[in-house]
Amino acid sequence: MKLLDGITVVDLTRVLSGPYSTMLLADFGADVIKIEAPESGDDSRNFAPFIGKESAYFMSINRGKKSVTLDLRKHEGQELLKKMIIKADVIVENYRPGTMERWNLGYEDLRTVNPKIIYAAVSGFGHSGPYSRKPAYDIVIQAMSGIMSLTGPEGGPSCRVGTSVGDIIPGLYTAFGIMMALYHRNVSGKGQKVDVAMFDGLVAALENAIARFQVEQRVPKPLGNRHPSVTPFDSFSAKDGLVVIGAGSQRLWELLCKDVIAQPELASDPLFVNGENRTKNHKELKNILEAAFSKMTLSELTSALEKTGIPHGPINSIDRVMEDPQLRARDMFVEIEHPVAGKLKYAGIPVKLSRTPGSIQAPAPILGQHTYEVLQKFAGLTKEDIADLHQKGIV
Amino acid sequence: MKLLDGITVVDLTRVLSGPYSTMLLADFGADVIKIEAPESGDDSRNFAPFIGKESAYFMSINRGKKSVTLDLRKHEGQELLKKMIIKADVIVENYRPGTMERWNLGYEDLRTVNPKIIYAAVSGFGHSGPYSRKPAYDIVIQAMSGIMSLTGPEGGPSCRVGTSVGDIIPGLYTAFGIMMALYHRNVSGKGQKVDVAMFDGLVAALENAIARFQVEQRVPKPLGNRHPSVTPFDSFSAKDGLVVIGAGSQRLWELLCKDVIAQPELASDPLFVNGENRTKNHKELKNILEAAFSKMTLSELTSALEKTGIPHGPINSIDRVMEDPQLRARDMFVEIEHPVAGKLKYAGIPVKLSRTPGSIQAPAPILGQHTYEVLQKFAGLTKEDIADLHQKGIV
Repeated sequence: MKLLDGITVVDLTRVLSGPYSTMLLADFGADVIKIEAPESGDDSRNFAPFIGKESAYFMSINRGKKSVTLDLRKHEGQELLKKMIIKADVIVENYRPGTMERWNLGYEDLRTVNPKIIYAAVSGFGHSGPYSRKPAYDIVIQAMSGIMSLTGPEGGPSCRVGTSVGDIIPGLYTAFGIMMALYHRNVSGKGQKVDVAMFDGLVAALENAIARFQVEQRVPKPLGNRHPSVTPFDSFSAKDGLVVIGAGSQRLWELLCKDVIAQPELASDPLFVNGENRTKNHKELKNILEAAFSKMTLSELTSALEKTGIPHGPINSIDRVMEDPQLRARDMFVEIEHPVAGKLKYAGIPVKLSRTPGSIQAPAPILGQHTYEVLQKFAGLTKEDIADLHQKGIV
Repeated sequence: MKLLDGITVVDLTRVLSGPYSTMLLADFGADVIKIEAPESGDDSRNFAPFIGKESAYFMSINRGKKSVTLDLRKHEGQELLKKMIIKADVIVENYRPGTMERWNLGYEDLRTVNPKIIYAAVSGFGHSGPYSRKPAYDIVIQAMSGIMSLTGPEGGPSCRVGTSVGDIIPGLYTAFGIMMALYHRNVSGKGQKVDVAMFDGLVAALENAIARFQVEQRVPKPLGNRHPSVTPFDSFSAKDGLVVIGAGSQRLWELLCKDVIAQPELASDPLFVNGENRTKNHKELKNILEAAFSKMTLSELTSALEKTGIPHGPINSIDRVMEDPQLRARDMFVEIEHPVAGKLKYAGIPVKLSRTPGSIQAPAPILGQHTYEVLQKFAGLTKEDIADLHQKGIV
């Protein structure tokens, strides 16, 4: 049995935040029906890299979903969507706020069609507030949320996080919100609206930067690889390369001095005696540590860290990550065969449930692959009806 | 009514990944009982910044929880924990795999005490595989997962993401996994184990880097602020400062040429005619765009972008973020008064539910603040019993 067996998700989302959230639901067995614009489909079908004409970008976040083409700007398309909503459990959309309402498909419209429907919306700025109608992509949210202002080399420029956390974090919040709403529907029988703003989602991930700014009254800046309040917690040069070390407690700090660099007296040096002092004097400390590490090869340093139990690791590039034995043992790269594009590896499922584990249901769909199957099931349409709608540009 | 009313979460987690996940559950009404080591408590109680002796780091992720001190290394502490598990719904722990088993508190032990218990574990590398017992902190996971290898200035060093996404993303997966397990328990009456590895969680957030590497056979590197497969999607200099622009579709690209820089012919230049070519020729394109933008003030450029509907925004520092009117309108900064530390603002709740909204229940607890209240309720202990246990160092 799959955890979300019997749950139908009507998925109007495009590109990344929404599709990421519905991919998680599909991996746990939900029937995710992706509604796409006829002819063009999800914008990300045109995002590189491509295998032949198929976008590997699109394929990587739309596995296990069905694809139905439907023009929601047309009345007939809207009515067909409502027929689907009658039998669905969840609808997810990431249009700019106001769009669904203009199509008579907003939450207030759809709850009259199905009062138990869970309506999840993920948008740049959310369904309320002065920026609500503004458009956004990941980079806009990374910039405006402050996360870029914290990322980059110390003293250097702000950098975008190299993966689209402006979509992925809000996508995770959306999936969490949908599961909360499904849980509540089991308890109360009632549906509700789940409103997630990408902007809010990244602000909720700013972590201690908010507290630091208020307490220290200094605007936080990029710090390279070091942590703002835990030291040593950084990358360090050994004789033949870089290693990251996180000695995040007093005990680990003392072990580092005693057992890794054989300078037990350093642990009680007033400059470094507690976490606050180590952070204050991080430059001096890094110099001392790197002077010691520069006499060790990576292999010597790693083995000393290993023995003491101090968290450490290499800065892996993607080729190394894809060969990692731990990730292989955890099925974190799954090969999926697509009927057109062939085989490719994708990230696996990072939530391991003992009783109802997730699994990948199918490759990503070709545009409109399930239009007939789905519209027949939800609206009783025949092949002739579909051909007629296709002629009119509605499917 | 709160969504998680009646749900008891026994929370053995420390520092960030686990506490982040249980904070989300507390915000939606779960009774989260944080178990801490007597005397020392959660390591993050010693993380800067401090207000007096209270850690603002700790306070920022432990609001709305109760604190009970209990020494789980001692038999009496373990037995008291089991008494709590009998009446609890969820236990969350982020010890190194093997630790809970050594204390006779692993999933196999606890399910015999309460077969409906949901046992969630978040660890560096997960509860299986060759690295399972290795320790990890955020920086180790950021480094090993490949996310650092994608982040930083183009041609420059890899950078740590300036907020602990190595904890926060897995924390979100854990909260999502717990909600899935609670949903399944409603359907089936059965509990289960939720096993989340920080390593797996970040790999699942690598997005298109995995597909790019396989298709292009080139190891992805840091790209500064630009996107690897969508162009223009970067920061740009205007006359008096930087702005980020995400023109992520063909339509937006054409609008940018026509209505923002008044060079409609650029849209059909073969070098830039489609997304793939724009990404290939990103340097030339950035030069052309910045030559045009350099004649405009930020205010002129922003207003032109605004009119066309092209997503854009400033690179905000944390002080600007905290003043943002949209975030204020969405209650994304909430002031909480702590009995010892006084008032401080924290990030609000980024999942807005229409029927069962979240809210912040209480400030973060003082170490052991609820020991008596909780142990009286779950184990029938009297004040004398607690005093006795305290003498023995168990609470």
